[in-house]
Amino acid sequence: MRVGVFGASGYVGGEILRLLLGHPRVEVVAATSNTYAGEYVHRVHPNIRGQTALKFIKSDPLKAAGLCDVLFVATPHGVSSSFIPQVLDSGIKIIDTSADFRLKNPEDYLKWYDWKHKCPEMLNKAVYGLPELHREEIKGAQLVAVPGCMATAGILALAPIVKSGNIEKDRIVVDFKIGSSGAGAKPSLSSHHSEHYSVVRPYKPVGHRHTAELEQELSLLCGEKVKISMSAHAVNMVRGILSTCHVFLKDSIKSIEVWRLYREFYSGEPFIRFIRDTKGVFRYPDPKITVGSNYCDIGFEVDEHAGRLVILSAIDNLMKGAAGTAVQDMNIMCGWDEREGLRYSALHPI
Amino acid sequence: MRVGVFGASGYVGGEILRLLLGHPRVEVVAATSNTYAGEYVHRVHPNIRGQTALKFIKSDPLKAAGLCDVLFVATPHGVSSSFIPQVLDSGIKIIDTSADFRLKNPEDYLKWYDWKHKCPEMLNKAVYGLPELHREEIKGAQLVAVPGCMATAGILALAPIVKSGNIEKDRIVVDFKIGSSGAGAKPSLSSHHSEHYSVVRPYKPVGHRHTAELEQELSLLCGEKVKISMSAHAVNMVRGILSTCHVFLKDSIKSIEVWRLYREFYSGEPFIRFIRDTKGVFRYPDPKITVGSNYCDIGFEVDEHAGRLVILSAIDNLMKGAAGTAVQDMNIMCGWDEREGLRYSALHPI
Amino acid sequence: MRVGVFGASGYVGGEILRLLLGHPRVEVVAATSNTYAGEYVHRVHPNIRGQTALKFIKSDPLKAAGLCDVLFVATPHGVSSSFIPQVLDSGIKIIDTSADFRLKNPEDYLKWYDWKHKCPEMLNKAVYGLPELHREEIKGAQLVAVPGCMATAGILALAPIVKSGNIEKDRIVVDFKIGSSGAGAKPSLSSHHSEHYSVVRPYKPVGHRHTAELEQELSLLCGEKVKISMSAHAVNMVRGILSTCHVFLKDSIKSIEVWRLYREFYSGEPFIRFIRDTKGVFRYPDPKITVGSNYCDIGFEVDEHAGRLVILSAIDNLMKGAAGTAVQDMNIMCGWDEREGLRYSALHPI
Amino acid sequence: MRVGVFGASGYVGGEILRLLLGHPRVEVVAATSNTYAGEYVHRVHPNIRGQTALKFIKSDPLKAAGLCDVLFVATPHGVSSSFIPQVLDSGIKIIDTSADFRLKNPEDYLKWYDWKHKCPEMLNKAVYGLPELHREEIKGAQLVAVPGCMATAGILALAPIVKSGNIEKDRIVVDFKIGSSGAGAKPSLSSHHSEHYSVVRPYKPVGHRHTAELEQELSLLCGEKVKISMSAHAVNMVRGILSTCHVFLKDSIKSIEVWRLYREFYSGEPFIRFIRDTKGVFRYPDPKITVGSNYCDIGFEVDEHAGRLVILSAIDNLMKGAAGTAVQDMNIMCGWDEREGLRYSALHPI
Repeated sequence: MRVGVFGASGYVGGEILRLLLGHPRVEVVAATSNTYAGEYVHRVHPNIRGQTALKFIKSDPLKAAGLCDVLFVATPHGVSSSFIPQVLDSGIKIIDTSADFRLKNPEDYLKWYDWKHKCPEMLNKAVYGLPELHREEIKGAQLVAVPGCMATAGILALAPIVKSGNIEKDRIVVDFKIGSSGAGAKPSLSSHHSEHYSVVRPYKPVGHRHTAELEQELSLLCGEKVKISMSAHAVNMVRGILSTCHVFLKDSIKSIEVWRLYREFYSGEPFIRFIRDTKGVFRYPDPKITVGSNYCDIGFEVDEHAGRLVILSAIDNLMKGAAGTAVQDMNIMCGWDEREGLRYSALHPI
Repeated sequence: MRVGVFGASGYVGGEILRLLLGHPRVEVVAATSNTYAGEYVHRVHPNIRGQTALKFIKSDPLKAAGLCDVLFVATPHGVSSSFIPQVLDSGIKIIDTSADFRLKNPEDYLKWYDWKHKCPEMLNKAVYGLPELHREEIKGAQLVAVPGCMATAGILALAPIVKSGNIEKDRIVVDFKIGSSGAGAKPSLSSHHSEHYSVVRPYKPVGHRHTAELEQELSLLCGEKVKISMSAHAVNMVRGILSTCHVFLKDSIKSIEVWRLYREFYSGEPFIRFIRDTKGVFRYPDPKITVGSNYCDIGFEVDEHAGRLVILSAIDNLMKGAAGTAVQDMNIMCGWDEREGLRYSALHPI
Repeated sequence: MRVGVFGASGYVGGEILRLLLGHPRVEVVAATSNTYAGEYVHRVHPNIRGQTALKFIKSDPLKAAGLCDVLFVATPHGVSSSFIPQVLDSGIKIIDTSADFRLKNPEDYLKWYDWKHKCPEMLNKAVYGLPELHREEIKGAQLVAVPGCMATAGILALAPIVKSGNIEKDRIVVDFKIGSSGAGAKPSLSSHHSEHYSVVRPYKPVGHRHTAELEQELSLLCGEKVKISMSAHAVNMVRGILSTCHVFLKDSIKSIEVWRLYREFYSGEPFIRFIRDTKGVFRYPDPKITVGSNYCDIGFEVDEHAGRLVILSAIDNLMKGAAGTAVQDMNIMCGWDEREGLRYSALHPI
Repeated sequence: MRVGVFGASGYVGGEILRLLLGHPRVEVVAATSNTYAGEYVHRVHPNIRGQTALKFIKSDPLKAAGLCDVLFVATPHGVSSSFIPQVLDSGIKIIDTSADFRLKNPEDYLKWYDWKHKCPEMLNKAVYGLPELHREEIKGAQLVAVPGCMATAGILALAPIVKSGNIEKDRIVVDFKIGSSGAGAKPSLSSHHSEHYSVVRPYKPVGHRHTAELEQELSLLCGEKVKISMSAHAVNMVRGILSTCHVFLKDSIKSIEVWRLYREFYSGEPFIRFIRDTKGVFRYPDPKITVGSNYCDIGFEVDEHAGRLVILSAIDNLMKGAAGTAVQDMNIMCGWDEREGLRYSALHPI
């Protein structure tokens, strides 16, 4: 199957390329970038030097679509909605890692992105591409919107307990810690090594856009309006997200019950791991242990003192948080084994 | 004035030594360590090489007390309570950075430390050495218990809003991120560089001991029982703590009102800085900007969407979180300018 | 084919396990560790959680050998020479990542390791397992000694120019920079995160043991005694080695000639990449660009001013510097495609 | 005394400001920056928030000179030579941290900077501001050129042994490792955190401009033409330089003799420390142990095997490598105690 990456010079685009080049069922036929057109892709993504002689081509959507059966889109937010409607007519499958088709309610784009959506009528045709929640819809979808990186970590941590109904739905605190690759490949003072090294920077304590995705998906899941109190911090690593979810319980709950809830909810999921040990260093999820893999690690602890449940989830933001889920979505859309091309262990130590 | 450090081979002890060696009003006459007795202190604290020819002596409390007018204690928890009662009789002033005299209620030691206190009758003679809350008591104290590093950051962030009464007192989430020096100088697998590098490790999601200090001090402040939902994460830096405090408001509040509340509460405080800017990289507190200084940086953001107030505080855990406050306490106890020996800027970039 | 790892709880053992679990032609039947016998391997190597249900067994050499067709040995130096002679009789193939069989001259063990070899008569039966230099011998070998991590980087950087004869053979400076995983999984003060973070520590400016391997192999290659001036520095990363080789030229040489020399020497090598660009950030080898892969990246620059040639090489010390070469050796010994199970791209950014 | 900083928005300018604000004998009256004119200096240098209410003013050299008795210049290379000749007439003392007046031979600017100097006649009026070599000249100087950061580390490491005459003067390898702050405050892809984290990047293996300073000063010292083989690597830290100097001995030498040579050469120097221990973690210089201080730490090891002497030196590039030496120069020029305002210990751990 012929696949391409539209907007392939960023970190997500590069990670999709890495995965596709190692995927046994696809051939990479196009990688677009207006800035680097004509250059070898390994000049921008030096890690894949020796794995391909591909060169970037100009970012012409119709041309790219003409070359591919599946097109991955990794453009900045606000770009893909301007060309996807036309391109879809060709019958091509599109997997969009940008935010343009994640939200169902056009007004949410106004509220959270301060942006008027260009084709609101398309929003309900796109499937929110989180396999653990929307696998059946993804199977038949032509357009899949890959969830935001932090949204992925937060939704997967919270889904079972939110669905259970046993928490206060407007006191859900989700405290995120994310590595520098989450901010993309474009340099700025905030990402300058001297300024970002050793940092614990609360760059978005309130008002983060991923709040909208978290609320949309978790409300859908439990049938009630859920309110998310999200804060995001940049920390000193490149890949990875940890979400620390603090929820207050209506009725007290035992650890064994939480276990059961989560194991049942994620039964058979190939990329969910539960991390909870009573000794050793690796007792809870930590993004360090997911780097390079498509796993979402989930753990928890009951706080009897405060009537609180703390759920922790960790992912590699470029993998399960973007490129990994994108490829998982492709596998589902194409009827392949979901793990195809995604069987990587994490690296440790790293 | 003659000063000494009992238990001077750890990171807190070393930092106290660094500060005392640069303090214009004191002479360091003793640094104790059973492990390194007879060795130059700069063999353990290489940064002070060239600043002193002091050698470690054995850790004999009565002997150390005999040498000093003020004795700093930096032993592991559970040690100082076994000798301080006898030593105090000599009239010496003691500043204890361990946890042994921080809590007023002996039962809290049982609950949070699983430890029966050896001299519960002394607890009310010790002053909780947070200058911003207990300055007057510190002035006349003979025994001061320096607050825990995370407790310091959390209490200073929360005190004004808790005192205001305008928050839900049992839905206070305090999410801490701390550097590796907080775990001390003793190697272990969890602090092994290959295991700690790039980490975001939720090492104590519930049940952290500093919860007791936070609840004690904040309850005292507002006259009601406060419940703290604390979680602690280790991150990839050496010095620093960020506390992210998520509180839910009873009545909505405007930013300008929060400003006023905090400015009034901390009026005249020499080591509180407010960090809140509308542009640039340094818009909120970040421990990176406090390294080497005694400042506690405080900032906040109102979340109208969720009815939440997020307060952020950042400190250098070895300075304002331990040695810096210890020296500040000494200055107060001795009637000196509180800033004496503590006028260091942070280093930037670092 | 049944394979096992003897001494599987360290970082090299863990990396071999990761590679073998993803290798299409082998089945992992044994992982030994006296410390962790009975525990799941993922408790020690958390990255492979979800990839295997294997448990550690006790480190009994004969028993381990009885289970396997190929046995990887990843014990500390000095261990394997005490059991390999007996085990070899069973006909098993052994790939030893320790230093016990790397050197041919028993006196070199005395000089560099201050250690009397237990079975010097075996040294010439072992093959020095650097495929780029000894591929033909490896094919028929029963016992292969995997080169030291720094030795690998240094030898691959220097081999072509040393063989050319156009350098001063006793003025070869090799300045190494290595990540913390090179020191192994056992905690110590030198590897304590607070002490190792931000470090550039010249831990072995002279007298490093890998000097012996470098001199043995490079002397063999050019037929003359070569003298290596090696210095090793620990830096703030986990994986990776950069070797900076400074050699002085007898006759001046042009870049294009160096290119030709290196391209010819390494013609057809699957894991040698040349990195030399005139623009961009990725102009020279950097271990960061090799992490997770089996590549050795090589680059160089001619210094006309000083009559010097600088050759740079970068590897992932756990991959091409240990486990990767070990698996490459297995592939060669078994007659398989050398790249089998080693086709990983590096991760970027990381 | 009134002092100012011309070009105060960069990292060196910020560090000079930090030092001057803590210096007991000066008053900071001006900090210039065209980009930030009108803004508080703490918006750019957040570490000095709370220490000053100074605002940046426009970068007008004559105006700045009119305000000050001593003017520090921290502009990019090529700027100061265009205005210093005019400004000097006013009798002001100037301490220039840029490269414009470091070299004595105008042709060296052409060779190493590819730049024709604007006022070559001034070069011999400027003093090369390395106190350890030029203290007497600095005392009477009106214009001092602060040495380059790597040049400082390299010259201080090599001076005693080069002067001794007992080394091969054209086989001197100086292998530098430097933190990200050495590249300045301006973001670029090479300094992007995701690209610079975990890096060991040989960004300038040959042809580095500081070679010219090293050769000028070391040749002057020994009266013969010295040739330096310099290579520079960027590593994953913010502050610090380690220089590893590999020199080949004419006559073999014992450690005790090297000790004597270095101790005599640097006798009485307030900012030179010797680091050489037989046990522990801190056996050699490491920039980590100098951070925040003005020390240059020097150590060495004799390599009898290869006839080599390895000399190691470590500095904080923003301190002894720039701002610290600049303030030390001011102290000398003003006849003050050289240590005034520079008595900071390094921070440890950090």
